[in-house]
Amino acid sequence: MSEFAESPAAGAAAADGGVRGTGVWLVGARGSVATTVVAGCAGLVAGLYPATGLVTETEEFAAAGLPALSSLVFGGHDTVDWPLVKRAEMLGEQGVLPYGLVRAVRGELAVADGEIRPGGPAADDGRSDEELIAAFAADIEGFTRRRGLARTVVVNVASTEPVAVEGGRLPASSLYAAAALRAGCAYVNFTPSAGVGHPALEELRGRADVPWAGRDGKTGQTLLRAVLAPMFRQRALGVRAWSGTNLLGGGDGAALADPAAAAAKNAGKNRVLEDNLGALPEGEVHIDEVPALGEWKTAWDHVAFEGFLGSRMVLQTIWQGCDSALAAPLVLDLARLAARAQEAGIAGGLAELGFYFKDPDGGSAALAEQYDALVAFAARLAGGR
Amino acid sequence: MSEFAESPAAGAAAADGGVRGTGVWLVGARGSVATTVVAGCAGLVAGLYPATGLVTETEEFAAAGLPALSSLVFGGHDTVDWPLVKRAEMLGEQGVLPYGLVRAVRGELAVADGEIRPGGPAADDGRSDEELIAAFAADIEGFTRRRGLARTVVVNVASTEPVAVEGGRLPASSLYAAAALRAGCAYVNFTPSAGVGHPALEELRGRADVPWAGRDGKTGQTLLRAVLAPMFRQRALGVRAWSGTNLLGGGDGAALADPAAAAAKNAGKNRVLEDNLGALPEGEVHIDEVPALGEWKTAWDHVAFEGFLGSRMVLQTIWQGCDSALAAPLVLDLARLAARAQEAGIAGGLAELGFYFKDPDGGSAALAEQYDALVAFAARLAGGR
Amino acid sequence: MSEFAESPAAGAAAADGGVRGTGVWLVGARGSVATTVVAGCAGLVAGLYPATGLVTETEEFAAAGLPALSSLVFGGHDTVDWPLVKRAEMLGEQGVLPYGLVRAVRGELAVADGEIRPGGPAADDGRSDEELIAAFAADIEGFTRRRGLARTVVVNVASTEPVAVEGGRLPASSLYAAAALRAGCAYVNFTPSAGVGHPALEELRGRADVPWAGRDGKTGQTLLRAVLAPMFRQRALGVRAWSGTNLLGGGDGAALADPAAAAAKNAGKNRVLEDNLGALPEGEVHIDEVPALGEWKTAWDHVAFEGFLGSRMVLQTIWQGCDSALAAPLVLDLARLAARAQEAGIAGGLAELGFYFKDPDGGSAALAEQYDALVAFAARLAGGR
Amino acid sequence: MSEFAESPAAGAAAADGGVRGTGVWLVGARGSVATTVVAGCAGLVAGLYPATGLVTETEEFAAAGLPALSSLVFGGHDTVDWPLVKRAEMLGEQGVLPYGLVRAVRGELAVADGEIRPGGPAADDGRSDEELIAAFAADIEGFTRRRGLARTVVVNVASTEPVAVEGGRLPASSLYAAAALRAGCAYVNFTPSAGVGHPALEELRGRADVPWAGRDGKTGQTLLRAVLAPMFRQRALGVRAWSGTNLLGGGDGAALADPAAAAAKNAGKNRVLEDNLGALPEGEVHIDEVPALGEWKTAWDHVAFEGFLGSRMVLQTIWQGCDSALAAPLVLDLARLAARAQEAGIAGGLAELGFYFKDPDGGSAALAEQYDALVAFAARLAGGR
Repeated sequence: MSEFAESPAAGAAAADGGVRGTGVWLVGARGSVATTVVAGCAGLVAGLYPATGLVTETEEFAAAGLPALSSLVFGGHDTVDWPLVKRAEMLGEQGVLPYGLVRAVRGELAVADGEIRPGGPAADDGRSDEELIAAFAADIEGFTRRRGLARTVVVNVASTEPVAVEGGRLPASSLYAAAALRAGCAYVNFTPSAGVGHPALEELRGRADVPWAGRDGKTGQTLLRAVLAPMFRQRALGVRAWSGTNLLGGGDGAALADPAAAAAKNAGKNRVLEDNLGALPEGEVHIDEVPALGEWKTAWDHVAFEGFLGSRMVLQTIWQGCDSALAAPLVLDLARLAARAQEAGIAGGLAELGFYFKDPDGGSAALAEQYDALVAFAARLAGGR
Repeated sequence: MSEFAESPAAGAAAADGGVRGTGVWLVGARGSVATTVVAGCAGLVAGLYPATGLVTETEEFAAAGLPALSSLVFGGHDTVDWPLVKRAEMLGEQGVLPYGLVRAVRGELAVADGEIRPGGPAADDGRSDEELIAAFAADIEGFTRRRGLARTVVVNVASTEPVAVEGGRLPASSLYAAAALRAGCAYVNFTPSAGVGHPALEELRGRADVPWAGRDGKTGQTLLRAVLAPMFRQRALGVRAWSGTNLLGGGDGAALADPAAAAAKNAGKNRVLEDNLGALPEGEVHIDEVPALGEWKTAWDHVAFEGFLGSRMVLQTIWQGCDSALAAPLVLDLARLAARAQEAGIAGGLAELGFYFKDPDGGSAALAEQYDALVAFAARLAGGR
Repeated sequence: MSEFAESPAAGAAAADGGVRGTGVWLVGARGSVATTVVAGCAGLVAGLYPATGLVTETEEFAAAGLPALSSLVFGGHDTVDWPLVKRAEMLGEQGVLPYGLVRAVRGELAVADGEIRPGGPAADDGRSDEELIAAFAADIEGFTRRRGLARTVVVNVASTEPVAVEGGRLPASSLYAAAALRAGCAYVNFTPSAGVGHPALEELRGRADVPWAGRDGKTGQTLLRAVLAPMFRQRALGVRAWSGTNLLGGGDGAALADPAAAAAKNAGKNRVLEDNLGALPEGEVHIDEVPALGEWKTAWDHVAFEGFLGSRMVLQTIWQGCDSALAAPLVLDLARLAARAQEAGIAGGLAELGFYFKDPDGGSAALAEQYDALVAFAARLAGGR
Repeated sequence: MSEFAESPAAGAAAADGGVRGTGVWLVGARGSVATTVVAGCAGLVAGLYPATGLVTETEEFAAAGLPALSSLVFGGHDTVDWPLVKRAEMLGEQGVLPYGLVRAVRGELAVADGEIRPGGPAADDGRSDEELIAAFAADIEGFTRRRGLARTVVVNVASTEPVAVEGGRLPASSLYAAAALRAGCAYVNFTPSAGVGHPALEELRGRADVPWAGRDGKTGQTLLRAVLAPMFRQRALGVRAWSGTNLLGGGDGAALADPAAAAAKNAGKNRVLEDNLGALPEGEVHIDEVPALGEWKTAWDHVAFEGFLGSRMVLQTIWQGCDSALAAPLVLDLARLAARAQEAGIAGGLAELGFYFKDPDGGSAALAEQYDALVAFAARLAGGR
């Protein structure tokens, strides 16, 4: 175990003088986002990088009583079994994880790797939904107990599911969500999949005494739309058409090339425009899989708007970012906020976290208002200590 | 007078059963912006166009007691003497004013033309600053009296002045501003010129019992920066460099090709970034005169930012708009708000109008907060009735 | 006839001292492109505008013996019956045709309007393909005879057809093409529709003694691709993915929102990349109908390419143009070149006109080489006089 | 010396059975471009990467008798003395050189490092121009002799010099160029500096029996302009304004922030437009130093053009590339071509290499024609064997 001894994050739970750690159980734990979450958190705890992109590390959140980054302990489910360290090395070669980080945090990656359990269901899985939920819940409970954690937050960072699932089976994202609720865990859905919102989970949601938040992290095009659409409304300009194209490499691009998965994603994107502008303007959104882009994504938006006396004008935006690097700090933020909310006795859908989502559980669709709501939530958490 | 009889705006002051009109005195009254203001207001009053771009026509402002568009009466100063109708026809040919509008509002343009007085000072003008201020004030007072107006707001929409003016003389914009204050008029500076903010006007400002607002209308690149910069801060992303290039045709492009005039403009643009981001990032702003663009302008912005673990990402924006069509509704908004503020007994710099300006008299630099402040101001005006 | 007397184009055929005019028979004669062709030609002949965009008016073509613009006489088929003058006025209001042109060329528009015959077939048209071809051919022959023309070129500028047509019937574009060949006319297909290339016309093509050219005019995104793709190849750079989105207002946008029509268009677009790069890279092309754009179109292209040692780089292009204004001069060029080719006794597919097409009848796919081939063709035409 | 024994490039000259190596003497030998040239060539020779970006490795050049990459031997001058390996490691961390390459070619970098001599002159250098030229020439001759090379090509890849140099002294680039000629070496100027073209070197050029080529490698914005400008001319479109902004990190950005250095660069950029369009359109070019971009550069171009009937349209391009990765393969190409030209007895300015330069020694300014000239030159070299 000497390898782990050097690793502040891994030992944090025990070392922190009586304060127990907080679990972060990642559904899709061997994917790019999860790998970046685990490696990045370790790098931050080791003081190798500043906390860029982590909203919860800004001063507005200092008094909110959030669990320290050094107290986070990672585990999760995944259907593939390549080692986390291998994935991290791949991300290093693609320039997603910086030169040197992967070597520095091999220990923490190995610890997390040891806490990843097989996900499901496989195509030929003979288990019933109920059996799967029970198995997943047992995995999570075992992790929490074994690592001596105060609580565990379940975060879905798996690939986007198609909207409709054939057969009587629940979609996988909802099986995991049900397991989270069954295990008494807060739940965050960072994807457009159904998750905890599935109609079949209504009764379970009603009984559950935990907070949840979602859905679909807002990391690029929709983030921009959530700040630009309010500008058009406030300036009384008439948006005639808002068109967009997303080019995605990596796994999400492949998943979203499926029209059904893309439909789930686009529903959220459209909601941002409709809520902010009062009506959905003309225009389509395309999501293209472009493997050559690797972990990078590009979003082009074209807004045709009308000004005084019907004058025709255009705004175009081009956003080029690394999907995992955009998502990972938000995942850490959400895990900390949800854990603290649960500690503070808050349950149900957290509309206050709409800042992070394309399709939130209520609240404003304008980013500035969502930020105000988030800061107010932090104050409420601070007050509740 | 039969020509005017058909014109609702021109006759409004007298026809409105006892309610006296509100004067809008435009410094630079024969320019593109002023011409668009006069023609556009007439077109709106005649019901030819919806009030796109006029924030004061949205429901948030319905109870604020603003003067009706139909009660606005236009006049102004200019150093050139081409007829307003000719200018409007030129703007029609360039596609700035719509096909048909110019013909429909010839009467209103002629009325406003009759209220434009020679500006100054000319290079060889023998008059002292004091004599010029007195003459300009007399022009404004004559207009207010002759047209039986309740009050007049002076709005500077002239070309940008160089930062430094040699000789002992005040810059022209400050002569006009002093005249406005002398005449007891509210004053709005839509340009980056010194205007009422000149140090030599300090005593006059102290004595004046009128409101003023400025400076430099926010109509394109800086408008976008005022919504995008807060997003980077709220998301804890590190803006490394914010670079921009503006291509302007028309008069403003020529004025801003002068490095001293451009410096005045860029100070405001930088302030938006510095105030919103906490520090001014790397990057320059260029303003190029490109006569081929006519009345249109294009602004390209390139934001190099850093995310989680130092990942390098880029946002680019391209804004293509018609300068006059972007500015004109804001000028109408500002004239109405300033007139109503004066009526309500409010004096001094109106920080609440920061929504409209690159370099406002205080307040937040984030557009969403500026909008909230503006709506609160409208409520205050409504309460004061 | 006094109206026509003022019109140089209309009277040209008769007035030109024994030289007979050349007919240009437009399939889709009441559409935006056709209207721009007729109005624009008249405007040029009247000396109101320079010949911008007309390649055949540059010095390289001076000796080729092309019919003068003033000798062109317009007619055509269309399935709608709004007056050409009305359509031109609409285009004027949208800024496609310049302020003043429509009034100046009303006479020429009316003359052309008088030469437009009902197209087809309607959904419930009881006539056989053979009867339709005969009727269309009779229309064209009647026009040529009535106007005393030396010859007539048929140009297809109708909306794009779906790839597959149900029923046993030939697609309309091929009925018109067959009529052209039957009437002994040169034929130009400016659209991606099947036209003269339909397999069922093989025997007719074999017997015909006229030239033809196509297909699908290269006016924006594909024009750019035809110059940029050769650059990547010549520089030995590796294009990894070439993605693109087209936003089209107007009629073509609507037609291409039909996936089958879009497929026809995209085949041509892909061919340009494949032929120039040696292989088709990753990447999709989207064609969106955005009615708010009116007659304007925007094409965004994103090229992910690889340089030395696998370095990843990106080129993006944004093309904003007016579809009709881009197409119309090419239609005039093609009509003149095809007419002259027929006069010179050249028959069959004109690969030398690949400069104008997305999907030409052979030859290089690189614009520079296509231009060289075109200039060489002009020299050949000059030599043949 | 065992370290070098593993290195094919280093040992190539001796190992190649009687065929002597070719020297590549880099002025600015410790800069990013030079480091990428040395490391990249070694990586290619070792079979680690395909020859992407190397035009001379395409089949059109197979018969031209160019020196093999494995026969190239590197040395050079520089005024700084950090180790080449350190520089390569820095480029690796910035993602310019790929993960793994630096380690694989440490040996080759060390060999080249041993052949770098101090450049000059320093500000307080007491030597005369004549003494400096003699010293530089001796360095080059010593390298050629010591390594047993058939010949050496001198390539200037140093930072751009200001246009005007005060004092009587020749600019450094011209001192090096004179040394190259004195040493009987072919000379390539990859920068906009004066180099061999300085008026004071006229007599020396007249006497020299070597080939030379320049100037200013065409790697981004100007490369695009050289393919796009011909398109506008061939299509008879009227370019009204061509505006551009370059954002450069790294050394070249800093050098070009000096207006005098930028002026040298812009002269070349303008020449491409003027030669291709027949006249220089409106529009400026800005070169901004943006250190946050590191080794990457972004160029935005905005082309306002006029089509049929004066319609206004716009093309914009955004080029994002790694400067060193764009330049390095061209440097290898040029060194090979110049060496072979000298071997073939060709002397004087090589207009045939205009494909590589912004401001070539004559020939067409259109890339497609420059490529044809280059391929013809390769055929001539093949014929001369």
